Amino acid sequence: MKINGKHQRTVWVAKDGWTVEILDQTKLPFEIEVIQLDSMKLAATAIREMWVRGAPLIGAVAAYGMALGMTEDTSDEHLQTCYDVLIETRPTAINLKWALDRTFAKLKNVASEQRKAVAYQLAAEIADEDVQLCESIGEHGLEIIKQIAAKKPAGSTVNVLTHCNAGWLATVDWGTAISPIYKAHEAGIKVHVWVDETRPRNQGLLTAFELGSHGVPHTLIADNVGGHLMQHGDVDLCIVGTDRTTAKGDVCNKIGTYLKALAAYDNNVPFYVALPSPTIDWTVYDGVKEIPIEQRSGDEQSHVYGIDPTGKRSWVNTAPAGTECGNYAFDVTPAKYVTGLITERGVCAATEQALDEMFADLKRPELV
Amino acid sequence: MKINGKHQRTVWVAKDGWTVEILDQTKLPFEIEVIQLDSMKLAATAIREMWVRGAPLIGAVAAYGMALGMTEDTSDEHLQTCYDVLIETRPTAINLKWALDRTFAKLKNVASEQRKAVAYQLAAEIADEDVQLCESIGEHGLEIIKQIAAKKPAGSTVNVLTHCNAGWLATVDWGTAISPIYKAHEAGIKVHVWVDETRPRNQGLLTAFELGSHGVPHTLIADNVGGHLMQHGDVDLCIVGTDRTTAKGDVCNKIGTYLKALAAYDNNVPFYVALPSPTIDWTVYDGVKEIPIEQRSGDEQSHVYGIDPTGKRSWVNTAPAGTECGNYAFDVTPAKYVTGLITERGVCAATEQALDEMFADLKRPELV
Repeated sequence: MKINGKHQRTVWVAKDGWTVEILDQTKLPFEIEVIQLDSMKLAATAIREMWVRGAPLIGAVAAYGMALGMTEDTSDEHLQTCYDVLIETRPTAINLKWALDRTFAKLKNVASEQRKAVAYQLAAEIADEDVQLCESIGEHGLEIIKQIAAKKPAGSTVNVLTHCNAGWLATVDWGTAISPIYKAHEAGIKVHVWVDETRPRNQGLLTAFELGSHGVPHTLIADNVGGHLMQHGDVDLCIVGTDRTTAKGDVCNKIGTYLKALAAYDNNVPFYVALPSPTIDWTVYDGVKEIPIEQRSGDEQSHVYGIDPTGKRSWVNTAPAGTECGNYAFDVTPAKYVTGLITERGVCAATEQALDEMFADLKRPELV
Repeated sequence: MKINGKHQRTVWVAKDGWTVEILDQTKLPFEIEVIQLDSMKLAATAIREMWVRGAPLIGAVAAYGMALGMTEDTSDEHLQTCYDVLIETRPTAINLKWALDRTFAKLKNVASEQRKAVAYQLAAEIADEDVQLCESIGEHGLEIIKQIAAKKPAGSTVNVLTHCNAGWLATVDWGTAISPIYKAHEAGIKVHVWVDETRPRNQGLLTAFELGSHGVPHTLIADNVGGHLMQHGDVDLCIVGTDRTTAKGDVCNKIGTYLKALAAYDNNVPFYVALPSPTIDWTVYDGVKEIPIEQRSGDEQSHVYGIDPTGKRSWVNTAPAGTECGNYAFDVTPAKYVTGLITERGVCAATEQALDEMFADLKRPELV
């Protein structure tokens, strides 16, 4: 999407035709800096140190990391080294392994002198596929927003509430939950986004940044506010992303998603979850019972980053000395509170049957 | 309650017998500083600049402000001036007007040479009454905690979730929602408190500070976390305060209270509201429809206070440049989500009938 009026992806090949450039997401939303990756090891650092984040984006950067590796040495041995170094950067990210397995398998079967060219082409394909998938989610979600707009007086604004950052910064372009909002904005529908701050890591600030950069009206609010807004008719629909969706449609997403789903349910506000099909975990059924929730460092709760009074990026420790801080990264929203799942294939109910019908080939590839 | 092992109130007469001392709440929880008030005007500043906060505490400090005024000049004219200056400090706070009206009426009918002594005595009475009222709330709430503890295996911890600061710092001592927790702690029941951070103003940090100072185990969490904890059986009950309770038991309290009430309801966790009867507004029935919600400056959302890397109290601006911030101060929790109201007279259901029965003399004083 756009920053300062110029279209931008989160990862791209530089003008020199071989180095790979990324936005430094550790400095966002406060500073916009591009980092040039000129080696496989630096690509690995970019993933490990979270200069890039978001599962789809990590996959694409890993694929470009393999391409950078092939500019260094196209031997079988180095191919293996590149895979081994990159796979260890974020061991639990599913897209990372998927992108690396795919790249390794392809390059293994290609003559050494062709590996560099093939690796760049494949990385570009992986990035483009992600863009295509996110854009499809946007198109299907746009139909929902259009229907809601049609029910409102002509020219009135559609208010969408979102939680966390499931925007283009977490993917290569478009994003998942925010993709339908960009599509609606570009289709000329008046949209306004309520952006949850998303404590403790404040990913809502990234959402505010990308919406602001692209010119989509939005308001940053505390995570406490959404229920009040829904009680007063100020939210037409919610759209959030997901880290993992179960076979019956339970949604594991950023902590606090569940509370917004409850408020939406209580106020008859549609609550949609946008997801690329790879986030569906067909091996898990009851999300609350089966999905273990990561607990992270309490420092993420106590230490808040921003611009200090001198204009520099800095932090403050908000917790009284000696305070124990809890930090649970995700929660699970039971399927009954989810109005629908917006996927790259279309919108379906958050039920076992609907998921089964839409993704039979993915769920039971052996039968297809 | 206690700070560093020493019992402390939020307002008291100094050892010199006439100046009034308060804790500077603008510096809490980061610095513990006592401010000495030696004039009516300084007492007015303390209220206006929020060196003290919390409706019951404001009432007590206003009464002491009248007493300080009487040390300066006991004439009718100055009595009126003191009232006029103090009433304008926080025009919307109900306890402020109540304390000032009561003091003014009493002093008006007392000979000028007695006014100083009577004013100090009345201020002490108003403060003591608040302590008594809060302690009664604590005793009634203790019975609820005892019943919950009795249903758990012997020696296990009772986990209480609270939102905002309805502790002793908002009153003269004990607090409202936290009073039952102090009572349980002193009764030897193992209690642990989940303390909501309470964005955007982070009043949860005051709750963490006062619980820590008194030695009550607690964990500070983001406002997003409570629902997840309730889904997993980690919350035995919720207790919150209220700014205004309607005649049918709807509860207007700090923004985000409603979301916790929804999660408690969804997970069969008891959700109690602690309140002194003066917060019941008998003129209001449907809280969501009738209570206007204050919108405050967006800076309270974007600017976060804490200790900076050099150890000084400072702030950071978390919002991307140009971001619009929404700041809604309160929300309304419909009575159907409230398990019970813990008042100074006992616990009653959040229904029109139960409130009627418990407070007939307050609701219709003309019939008593």
